[in-house]
Amino acid sequence: MPSISEKGRSMPASPIRRLVPYADAARSRGLTVYQLNIGQPDIHTPDVALQAVKSFSQSIIEYSHSAGNLSYRNKLAAYYQGMKMPVTADQLLITTGGSEALLFALMSCLNEEDELIVPEPFYANYISFAITAGVRIVPITARIENGFALPEIDAFEEKITDRTKAILICNPSNPTGYLYTEEELMRLREIVLRHDLFLFADEVYREFVYDGRKHISTFELPGLENHLVVVDSISKRYSMCGARIGALLTRNEEVYQTCLKFAQARLSPPTFGQIAGEAALDTPSSYFDEVVTEYEARRNYMVELLNQIQGVLCPRPGGAFYSVARLPVENAEDFCIWMLKEFEYKKQTVMMAPASGFYVTPGMGRDEVRLAYVLNRDKIGHAMECLAHGLRAYQTVMQPA
Amino acid sequence: MPSISEKGRSMPASPIRRLVPYADAARSRGLTVYQLNIGQPDIHTPDVALQAVKSFSQSIIEYSHSAGNLSYRNKLAAYYQGMKMPVTADQLLITTGGSEALLFALMSCLNEEDELIVPEPFYANYISFAITAGVRIVPITARIENGFALPEIDAFEEKITDRTKAILICNPSNPTGYLYTEEELMRLREIVLRHDLFLFADEVYREFVYDGRKHISTFELPGLENHLVVVDSISKRYSMCGARIGALLTRNEEVYQTCLKFAQARLSPPTFGQIAGEAALDTPSSYFDEVVTEYEARRNYMVELLNQIQGVLCPRPGGAFYSVARLPVENAEDFCIWMLKEFEYKKQTVMMAPASGFYVTPGMGRDEVRLAYVLNRDKIGHAMECLAHGLRAYQTVMQPA
Repeated sequence: MPSISEKGRSMPASPIRRLVPYADAARSRGLTVYQLNIGQPDIHTPDVALQAVKSFSQSIIEYSHSAGNLSYRNKLAAYYQGMKMPVTADQLLITTGGSEALLFALMSCLNEEDELIVPEPFYANYISFAITAGVRIVPITARIENGFALPEIDAFEEKITDRTKAILICNPSNPTGYLYTEEELMRLREIVLRHDLFLFADEVYREFVYDGRKHISTFELPGLENHLVVVDSISKRYSMCGARIGALLTRNEEVYQTCLKFAQARLSPPTFGQIAGEAALDTPSSYFDEVVTEYEARRNYMVELLNQIQGVLCPRPGGAFYSVARLPVENAEDFCIWMLKEFEYKKQTVMMAPASGFYVTPGMGRDEVRLAYVLNRDKIGHAMECLAHGLRAYQTVMQPA
Repeated sequence: MPSISEKGRSMPASPIRRLVPYADAARSRGLTVYQLNIGQPDIHTPDVALQAVKSFSQSIIEYSHSAGNLSYRNKLAAYYQGMKMPVTADQLLITTGGSEALLFALMSCLNEEDELIVPEPFYANYISFAITAGVRIVPITARIENGFALPEIDAFEEKITDRTKAILICNPSNPTGYLYTEEELMRLREIVLRHDLFLFADEVYREFVYDGRKHISTFELPGLENHLVVVDSISKRYSMCGARIGALLTRNEEVYQTCLKFAQARLSPPTFGQIAGEAALDTPSSYFDEVVTEYEARRNYMVELLNQIQGVLCPRPGGAFYSVARLPVENAEDFCIWMLKEFEYKKQTVMMAPASGFYVTPGMGRDEVRLAYVLNRDKIGHAMECLAHGLRAYQTVMQPA
């Protein structure tokens, strides 16, 4: 029997999804499972997007242009221009989710064994994409004690070698919700220019920013035209994760043409997702006002309840809809599994994502979890009550008096 | 300015799509361009599939399971079982097109620099997927003089080294339309077992088989349980290329679990495409009877007209909807461009795919083109008339008496 590949062997099981069988088992025991493990929003998809798909009037579902439908790219370019991101339709590629955009960027810009600096904790699937592209992730650790702020410039300089080719950030961050300040972004810009690196910026949570703060796109940083690739997605913005539509933006013509060749190989992005995405651009701004107000209230509520639990530390995130919390347990993964396998409170339990899978530095994040506040406040209240009871029960089981 | 990657540099521009700008220019000069370059069928998508999408009644477009919706996988497993392909829902992954299925298989089974034997000419994007996975394609040449039959077993043995890890076939073949015989498949089976290789079989054109012959799936070959990965797609079967839905089938549990990890990294296949694909399984068999009858008539007509043109050789393909023809020109790519840029006949011209991009052996296929008979007979008639006049005019221009 032939053996599988080294890359295949080193691919991690998703920390977001690997507890699913335990949750299924819990549900089959009659429990309500509050799913805070995955960024699947409960917010309705804008009606205008759903209607556009339902109004599909062609008789053949054809390939589209490999870069995506021109009508969509034109409209999307206008959207970005309104976000102070000056791109044209020829500087953006419609991709199959943000995932594919990042893969195209990695494949196009980095050689095997090249190094990619990523502030950790980071979106766990970056590890899988780096393995796919044969690229090494060099982490730079952001600390929960500092609210996950970006480390100082010196910490970056220490990580840079002659194999360093790019820096990847996610702003606002999945999993921490951290929102970069202008000063931090200018610091990144300086490093990128000084060492002639690429900067990959995952800005898919751009619209989800709280406390009256503003998201600053890397596009606003001067002098990065040839260095910057922005990864985007409509999954979270319009609550349409299943559409599988993202985008890659770059003003570097060579990078664009190279990414386009990878795009041509897979023929085209999904037709219906593009139709939904194009229509979604007509979503009234009141939709976002409501959504942001709702997420902000959820964040306030969840973070407050979390920090009320003895031994729990949860910084207040500035954006996205995730937070990373430190729990008073030795091994958060064991605890998350225990919550699903052994625990129940009023016929309920909670599913969280162990945070160790969001770090690559060994040992980091062992006592942390990621929580997505994608449920309404009522459910968040129940989930936090359940978690508090779970933690107490777990401490009794693990450290009997 | 940072440089792009070696992989990016070596990615070929798609031979199927790279003439598009010339075709656009021809159209803007008012010409009718018969597009025989790409396998975009003009056949209608089954109504049952379109209706299912239009009836989408959920209010959120959610992620699906990374392996695809279970209801779809169950139904698809039944379809395959009916095709003498014994798989369960846990042995198949719904992928974003057949492209992704092949990429997952390559990434999961082959290491960088491992060798993949592929009979050439082959689907041009295999080159791009091999580059993406860092894998070397070792071609084994099928000859137009032999109607593109598979070379003898000795020819394979000569290609096998200690880095050979897999053989990839496409049956019926894109681009040649060649349909493998049972004897050829048994020969392949013998090589695969003797050298403990993987066999990747792209069987997306399974339904398109003519002259009353039957497609034999690699699944019917005994003893390949741990060796075989089948790549499938609904793009051509139901004329829904834009849905971007394919499938990966394997009874090798380790390979399946490894591919699943790659699938988890990209979260899920497109929701609407899955809905269309699941519903399409209810397409009445009369649909295929009509479609196959239509393609067979088109093939007969196109191949007959081609072989009537002086100096043209076109074997009669047994399946799919492509054929490769040898033209009386030195460089078919130059000729294809000339047809779009310089030539017109009654305000019409023809777009074909130069075949050299479907070979990796240098110099092979230089005087060949791939033609997809995805237009109705009326248009095929006009296109062939136009091609005949074009060839005559080109010879006059190139070799003036």
